[in-house]
Amino acid sequence: MPGRYQSPALEDVAIRDSFWLPRLKTNYLVSLDHQYDHLQANGSLDNFRRVVGEAGGDFEGAPFIDANVYKWVEAASYALATDEMPTLKTKVDNVLSLIEQAQADDGYLFTYFMLGDNSGRWSNFTMMHELYCAGHLIEAAVAHHRALDDDRLLRVARDLADHIDERFGPDKLDKIPGHEEIELALVRLYRVTDEERYLHLAGYFIDRRGRDPSPMAAELPELEQLIDRDSFSEEQKESGWSVVGYQDTLRDESGAYDGLWAQDHRPVRDQRRVEGHAVRAGNLYAAVAAYLQEVDDEDLFDAVERLWQNMVTRRMYVTGGIGSQKFGERFTTDYDLPNDDAFAETCASASAIFWSQNMFELTGEGKYVDVLERILYNALLSGVSLDGTRYCYSNPLQTDDEYHRNEWFYVACCPPNLSRVLASLGKYVYARSESELRVNLYVSSTVETTVSGTDVTVEQSTEYPWDGDVTVELSPEEPTAFALGFRIPDWADRWDLAVDGEPVAVEPTDGYATVEREWQDGDRIEISLAMDPTAVVAHPEVESDRALAALRRGPLVYCLEDIDNSQPVHHLILSDPDSLSARYTDSVLDGMTILEGEASVQDLEEWQDALYRPMQSVTESATEFTAIPYYARNNRGQTSMIVWMRLA
Amino acid sequence: MPGRYQSPALEDVAIRDSFWLPRLKTNYLVSLDHQYDHLQANGSLDNFRRVVGEAGGDFEGAPFIDANVYKWVEAASYALATDEMPTLKTKVDNVLSLIEQAQADDGYLFTYFMLGDNSGRWSNFTMMHELYCAGHLIEAAVAHHRALDDDRLLRVARDLADHIDERFGPDKLDKIPGHEEIELALVRLYRVTDEERYLHLAGYFIDRRGRDPSPMAAELPELEQLIDRDSFSEEQKESGWSVVGYQDTLRDESGAYDGLWAQDHRPVRDQRRVEGHAVRAGNLYAAVAAYLQEVDDEDLFDAVERLWQNMVTRRMYVTGGIGSQKFGERFTTDYDLPNDDAFAETCASASAIFWSQNMFELTGEGKYVDVLERILYNALLSGVSLDGTRYCYSNPLQTDDEYHRNEWFYVACCPPNLSRVLASLGKYVYARSESELRVNLYVSSTVETTVSGTDVTVEQSTEYPWDGDVTVELSPEEPTAFALGFRIPDWADRWDLAVDGEPVAVEPTDGYATVEREWQDGDRIEISLAMDPTAVVAHPEVESDRALAALRRGPLVYCLEDIDNSQPVHHLILSDPDSLSARYTDSVLDGMTILEGEASVQDLEEWQDALYRPMQSVTESATEFTAIPYYARNNRGQTSMIVWMRLA
Repeated sequence: MPGRYQSPALEDVAIRDSFWLPRLKTNYLVSLDHQYDHLQANGSLDNFRRVVGEAGGDFEGAPFIDANVYKWVEAASYALATDEMPTLKTKVDNVLSLIEQAQADDGYLFTYFMLGDNSGRWSNFTMMHELYCAGHLIEAAVAHHRALDDDRLLRVARDLADHIDERFGPDKLDKIPGHEEIELALVRLYRVTDEERYLHLAGYFIDRRGRDPSPMAAELPELEQLIDRDSFSEEQKESGWSVVGYQDTLRDESGAYDGLWAQDHRPVRDQRRVEGHAVRAGNLYAAVAAYLQEVDDEDLFDAVERLWQNMVTRRMYVTGGIGSQKFGERFTTDYDLPNDDAFAETCASASAIFWSQNMFELTGEGKYVDVLERILYNALLSGVSLDGTRYCYSNPLQTDDEYHRNEWFYVACCPPNLSRVLASLGKYVYARSESELRVNLYVSSTVETTVSGTDVTVEQSTEYPWDGDVTVELSPEEPTAFALGFRIPDWADRWDLAVDGEPVAVEPTDGYATVEREWQDGDRIEISLAMDPTAVVAHPEVESDRALAALRRGPLVYCLEDIDNSQPVHHLILSDPDSLSARYTDSVLDGMTILEGEASVQDLEEWQDALYRPMQSVTESATEFTAIPYYARNNRGQTSMIVWMRLA
Repeated sequence: MPGRYQSPALEDVAIRDSFWLPRLKTNYLVSLDHQYDHLQANGSLDNFRRVVGEAGGDFEGAPFIDANVYKWVEAASYALATDEMPTLKTKVDNVLSLIEQAQADDGYLFTYFMLGDNSGRWSNFTMMHELYCAGHLIEAAVAHHRALDDDRLLRVARDLADHIDERFGPDKLDKIPGHEEIELALVRLYRVTDEERYLHLAGYFIDRRGRDPSPMAAELPELEQLIDRDSFSEEQKESGWSVVGYQDTLRDESGAYDGLWAQDHRPVRDQRRVEGHAVRAGNLYAAVAAYLQEVDDEDLFDAVERLWQNMVTRRMYVTGGIGSQKFGERFTTDYDLPNDDAFAETCASASAIFWSQNMFELTGEGKYVDVLERILYNALLSGVSLDGTRYCYSNPLQTDDEYHRNEWFYVACCPPNLSRVLASLGKYVYARSESELRVNLYVSSTVETTVSGTDVTVEQSTEYPWDGDVTVELSPEEPTAFALGFRIPDWADRWDLAVDGEPVAVEPTDGYATVEREWQDGDRIEISLAMDPTAVVAHPEVESDRALAALRRGPLVYCLEDIDNSQPVHHLILSDPDSLSARYTDSVLDGMTILEGEASVQDLEEWQDALYRPMQSVTESATEFTAIPYYARNNRGQTSMIVWMRLA
């Protein structure tokens, strides 16, 4: 089942959207600058300068901190693909020079060992993340090459990939990365270089995982000595990454290595549930889905489809967030989705987006994009403040009034990761195959692409996500027959489609309403998705959500913040789900559709000092509530927030 | 406010109750035997034999394991107060001989140091619990002396108390116990000996606590070395007690000593919330309430009343359990009462019973007995299986089908503690002051006591807790005027009282309906407490119980077990609280009143693989449910259980 659908090139998609464009601009003009300053301040760039002799002092940060520089370069490269930003371009060029110079003659690149104990190279896979960093370098290089037609970073990436390829394999260094990332990067590198070695190496890393003897199991005793020894700076130890992440998480209750945390418990093709560290898992399966676009492997496909289903039907928050447990940043068990200590790491959302997109490209099924959309508009977007300068590493579904966003983190994986997803939004809006064009996301934009051999310009206009009306105008260079598919989101229970003003009845297939005909210049398709405010409930096995409802409208999940409500939000009882109404307002933050409805609330005075009371004696009074989109949470100072509202 | 009410002597109360008597017999005849066998098998008795040279080998168990022997002696002594049991008496006598012989010439007694490093005596108060064990020895001695008019153990206790009194104090060893217990014991020892030194020593330990400089804070660094060093056997380390309990729990987030865990954060008289390890806290405040029965101290009374209110109105499960968090076996924060990982240790229930009883004796207010009753019939009684051989250390309000009771524990504090409460049940049924008799618990029983100078026999008959009708017949030696008070439980919203068949209207005072008159031989008082099955809800701040209801009837809290229900209990939605009905049946376990009602349940088939669905699309079907008293949980194999039922 080689990949069926491809994204148009990023530079061919021009986003004009009133919802997304301001966010993309903030990302380009504020967040990338802000992140650069932090990479500067926290030593990430200085580590490279130290390698090339431009700065003094010791290595700073967690050993895998190089990755954040690479993610930043990747995000900035996407930004530069569509927007000219000379200041940003200069910064990118400077960083590129540093990276180029820092690379060792043999292709190796990982500043932690280059500045410290060089003999540590390729000796600790569980913990050191050299391969993870290499992966991010390669992804940045592919992005930079595609965006700017510039080979500088790609040469570095190839040299590093060759260095790895020479060393790793069944008869060589028979090891796998502790933190997956290089697999997807190698598939992408293969796509721009046509060098099959990279694809094979990706296949090796994917398929070696979970097989006995586990190279990670063998490393574990040594790892503990490493942690015990004074191998890390006080700062590194205090940051907690070295201890939390690796020792206990890879062992079962009896203390034996189980590998679950790093998806090393059994071969991927035999895995049945998404397990362990959510970012690792998402990266691995995103890579598998990409790899399967190049290589037929039915067992592996069945596995990755089964795993995706497990994630979506058992282990995903209503916001699209994944990895419910903070300790280990991990998946736990089916239906275990606590709200107030939901972890739902921003990076995990990014990886689930990559995975879902790759599954879509592989299969053409809309369900993958439904989930991608849910993550994008909710769990992921919640990870950055509206002004682009404050982040959430985790994205809980309930917070108290002490909760707040942060400017930066010791392990700052999330900010540049989120930026690279936003900066590449254009990749997710459309997809095409030989004779078909798909509209996956509803975003005002223009794409120039080729379908059935003809160049076509597609102009999409919408006020989505506030409104479900979408207009698409086609301008093929000449009348051409092709299929035009519109994703019918899983949340849309009513929708209409019209071509040139004439209603068209279409039965959706694989989640798409597809119209196939000879399209003329000026053809105009209108699709209207009903966006009723809806109360949703969770499966009865989700204990954390029992007797609670979440509010949803279109792709957006809503939350309630104390600041908008006259009563503490966790006291509000959704008394009448039919009372929900939606209203666009400019007066909340940068403008949004809010939800309003009727609630009841217990009389707190009446409770006095009682802890338990007969139900019949409790009186409730009517009140109203206001909900805002979840992504906009925690943008107005510290205020309590809930996603799930009491039903009784 | 010296103590106003006293319990009649245990041997003066004969329990004939159809609910309690079988449980007391099981306690005497099965549990005490079973516990003796475990004390034999786990080395607790052998440690004493080793000290006197009757056994070889090293000390076994946790250092404070002596306490379980003492608690067992205390329980057995109560049992022997009312029932002749020669086999048990022989065992007690043998244990007493061992204890007597083991005591050092200078009065010291703690087998851990006597068998090991003698120089460790009185050097580690945070961890070693010598004073805690001494407290339990003294309590056992007081119980034994009162029950059997035998001074052997009391002599040991006095020698040990004198040993301690000589060494501890402001100008001597200025230390306090890490685990409170000796305070209450010293007050009780004072009561049987009239030796004021013991009361003063109790006052010193109570008042020294929480004052700077904290002796425990000073011990902490040393303590960590002790734990690090090979000071403990592998078994001791694996049991977890040495690590879990002491290091982190006594420090705040910054690592500074905060003492909260051991109620050492500020002087008792300044404390505002019940904090830390729940058993420690309960023991301390039980001691304070006992001490205040002997010594006037208004500030201290205000504190202990404030603390009791905090516990009852913010930090107590509906079952009466306290200490919600397993890690540290501790109180957490107001309204934090998780159900599935509720800790609610059996020993903490015992300590809260002691505390509440002492508060009642001090004040005569029925609210304390209301809480005592709730704990007794629910959180405490749940700690032992109906057959008396399996225990729960913790008493969660929700368990899955892997949960089960245990025969014994490495730290086996709970089994003998529970046994000593049950064996002394007679102490809690009645209370008297100079001219007043109170019926505190409704238990079929006969008490012979003295009120207003006249000997009175009181015969109480009831089917409580299954039925709220109670008859009391009085037989004063001669017609005598006194006040007879009946506790009107907080759960009783309707009740009637009649004297010799004539209804009497009484306005309750301090929780008691009191009839004062000249009583004649054969006077008969009937009180009828309405026992309607009731759904109760928790304060809106209790997040774990939001949109849930618990079922209660009379003093009993109910639970639902899968074994009685056609649907998984955590799926059941209480659709109509008015549908609740109560029915006595012999067919469940040893016979009990069960609750039945109407529920609805979502159609699981309909959910298929969905994780979230619009509320409107979810259909529910009607079903019925059965609930059993919480105390009877987990007596029919492994089956899921809930106390709190969904309301939506």
